[in-house]
Amino acid sequence: MTLGKIVSVLAVILLCAVFAGHATPLEAAKKKAPKRWGTAALMVVVERESGSVLVFDTTKHDLLGRISGLGNLKHAAMVFSRDGRYGYVFQRDGWVSKLDLLDLALDKRVKAGDDSIGGAITQDGKYIAVGNYRPGNVTIIDAETMEIRKAIPAVREFGEGKAMESRVVGVVDAPDNLLLFALMDADGIWVVNTADPTFPVVKKFWDVGEAGGAGAMPYDAFLTPDGRYYMVGLLNANYMGMVDTWSLDKGVQKVLTESGDGENKVPLWKVPHLGGWTVSGDLAVVPALKQNRVIVYNTKTWELVKYIDTAGTALFNVGRPDGKQVWVDIVGPNGDKMQVIDIPTLSVVQTITVGEGAIDPQFTPKGEAVYISVMDENKIVVYDTTTFKKIKEFPAKKPSGIFCSDRAHKFGL
Amino acid sequence: MTLGKIVSVLAVILLCAVFAGHATPLEAAKKKAPKRWGTAALMVVVERESGSVLVFDTTKHDLLGRISGLGNLKHAAMVFSRDGRYGYVFQRDGWVSKLDLLDLALDKRVKAGDDSIGGAITQDGKYIAVGNYRPGNVTIIDAETMEIRKAIPAVREFGEGKAMESRVVGVVDAPDNLLLFALMDADGIWVVNTADPTFPVVKKFWDVGEAGGAGAMPYDAFLTPDGRYYMVGLLNANYMGMVDTWSLDKGVQKVLTESGDGENKVPLWKVPHLGGWTVSGDLAVVPALKQNRVIVYNTKTWELVKYIDTAGTALFNVGRPDGKQVWVDIVGPNGDKMQVIDIPTLSVVQTITVGEGAIDPQFTPKGEAVYISVMDENKIVVYDTTTFKKIKEFPAKKPSGIFCSDRAHKFGL
Repeated sequence: MTLGKIVSVLAVILLCAVFAGHATPLEAAKKKAPKRWGTAALMVVVERESGSVLVFDTTKHDLLGRISGLGNLKHAAMVFSRDGRYGYVFQRDGWVSKLDLLDLALDKRVKAGDDSIGGAITQDGKYIAVGNYRPGNVTIIDAETMEIRKAIPAVREFGEGKAMESRVVGVVDAPDNLLLFALMDADGIWVVNTADPTFPVVKKFWDVGEAGGAGAMPYDAFLTPDGRYYMVGLLNANYMGMVDTWSLDKGVQKVLTESGDGENKVPLWKVPHLGGWTVSGDLAVVPALKQNRVIVYNTKTWELVKYIDTAGTALFNVGRPDGKQVWVDIVGPNGDKMQVIDIPTLSVVQTITVGEGAIDPQFTPKGEAVYISVMDENKIVVYDTTTFKKIKEFPAKKPSGIFCSDRAHKFGL
Repeated sequence: MTLGKIVSVLAVILLCAVFAGHATPLEAAKKKAPKRWGTAALMVVVERESGSVLVFDTTKHDLLGRISGLGNLKHAAMVFSRDGRYGYVFQRDGWVSKLDLLDLALDKRVKAGDDSIGGAITQDGKYIAVGNYRPGNVTIIDAETMEIRKAIPAVREFGEGKAMESRVVGVVDAPDNLLLFALMDADGIWVVNTADPTFPVVKKFWDVGEAGGAGAMPYDAFLTPDGRYYMVGLLNANYMGMVDTWSLDKGVQKVLTESGDGENKVPLWKVPHLGGWTVSGDLAVVPALKQNRVIVYNTKTWELVKYIDTAGTALFNVGRPDGKQVWVDIVGPNGDKMQVIDIPTLSVVQTITVGEGAIDPQFTPKGEAVYISVMDENKIVVYDTTTFKKIKEFPAKKPSGIFCSDRAHKFGL
């Protein structure tokens, strides 16, 4: 073999190797290309004790994967970026985790307080607002970078240097880039304009309850689905406070002025949160805590329409997106059941034995299917809402709250 | 240099080349890794004359790219898969194009008719339904594979072998996996159950208009946003037909029974399509064709609430998602203007000079911004709906219809 021949042979080997080198990693990358999905209709299930969430694609009811290492997820709540790519998890210990739902990974985290009670994403999607018990404030976070932009102290000034710091509850986003929240200890409702980068408090309502010294004690709030009415639950009052965001000058109106009886001086529908309320057309369907029934109100007049008996204590009432059904989960006795209220007839039309600890029904965006956590049986089940037949079932670790990424487009959720 | 040395040197070169070969394409791929996005809030703009669409990410109002080669897009309409990943373009020449909005590419196409008038995606997302003038039928397509599953002939049988094939209009999806459409020539409304893979017609309403020999001639239809009422426009009748999908047994009810005057025997709000109607809470805001005003009806009673004068002939009325505003585009004189109706006061609160041929306002999912096609100035403009200030502007080729991927979760859209 001549030197020239050796050089030629080696050159050919070299070239082959280079081409192989060019081709192989790309081919490998292509083969390993992860499954891809749209983000508009993902179902995120909180596994509270293992500090993880499961992510499902509701198109064919596929489990996409699990995101772990999120820490304490007790009473965790979620909101979503408008494009559905990111989910923000509000944790009771003050952490807010930003999850990438394309990569199924924790993107960023920030500690927004020491004791937090949930939050909201602003209408324009730019900011996350966290309501804190301790310190008493609302903390505004940049939704992209997760940097804290501002803490708005929830402090009521009484003059002469006297001031009271308050726990914050019921943070919601409303149209025109407003943010509303209530001051539990200071008996107030505040409105912030998040379109202004200084986040000014543009309205402060005080003495919401006229309940004397102790204050009415707002304990939670919710926004009607149209984004217009902010309804505040008051621990020390026999009514709710209502703010019409279309005309803040009207002040806080009193609605649901019903009396409690005997040892229940406050109405029986009072629960530590209002997440179990649902609005379907002109009707609100409300769990009556301590009673085996739900209460139906007319949302135009807030007058009682009907009591509907249930198989036990209703916790979450969730309306199907078309408003034709409300699914009710039961806690305590009959906790394995879920009941379906038919809105045209306002009656229970179906009782389904889902499994022990069945909670938190969450509908697909158009509502033809519903996901349910069966906490004590470590599974998620999916039902067809027209036939009430089980479609699919998945193992899960003590699943609790379920959040569909279609919340990205809903006010107050 | 000895042979051994030469071999060693070449081997090193070879190894370097191989490693370089391994590294470079991967690095390059990483650098070239396309931008990624969530799909829940994409804005797709039809460029009708160039057979292309532009895709925008509304998070920061970014142009993501253009998908070309779609053919004739005159009067094209779109629906979206529930996850927002795919957009389906209905073309007048019968082609249905499935666009991949993650890859910005044409995924598949199928010819569903010779002369088509739009369509729908079923509640469960499994099927695309196309309404055809020619042949007179509804063609059902598998939304994943784009294979034709069934053609449902729109034929009215009169007995003794007599039959009439009809053009189809107003195809919409409704809750409980129903599909509704109207038979223009045969004066009917049909309901199909798409949960059954044989796609049976479960209800046929005939003689919708009682207009005698010629028939009422349904020309278009729309579904109220709650998915409940199917409203059919009738060319030869002074009213609309309404089907309550919660109780089909009620038959077709007559609403909006107002009379036309003089040479307009049919009401002035009649236009070749009902896409310009919008429902905001309990109000429907309807363009009054040939008059410089819009008409406001109560959707509970379908009684007249108010006429609101506009700067010209209103074509599309589009409600902001929170129901507080309706944006009205004007065609003909003052066609460069767009007007904003404030729903609380039912009055025009803003007139914006957008540009020549400004049409089809389309809101971001929570409505803080609106995209508008300015056809004759070859651009897309984005406005803030609270301040009415222009946020951004993009060049576009004769843009026309705009479709936001949040339609994925809306009935009848």
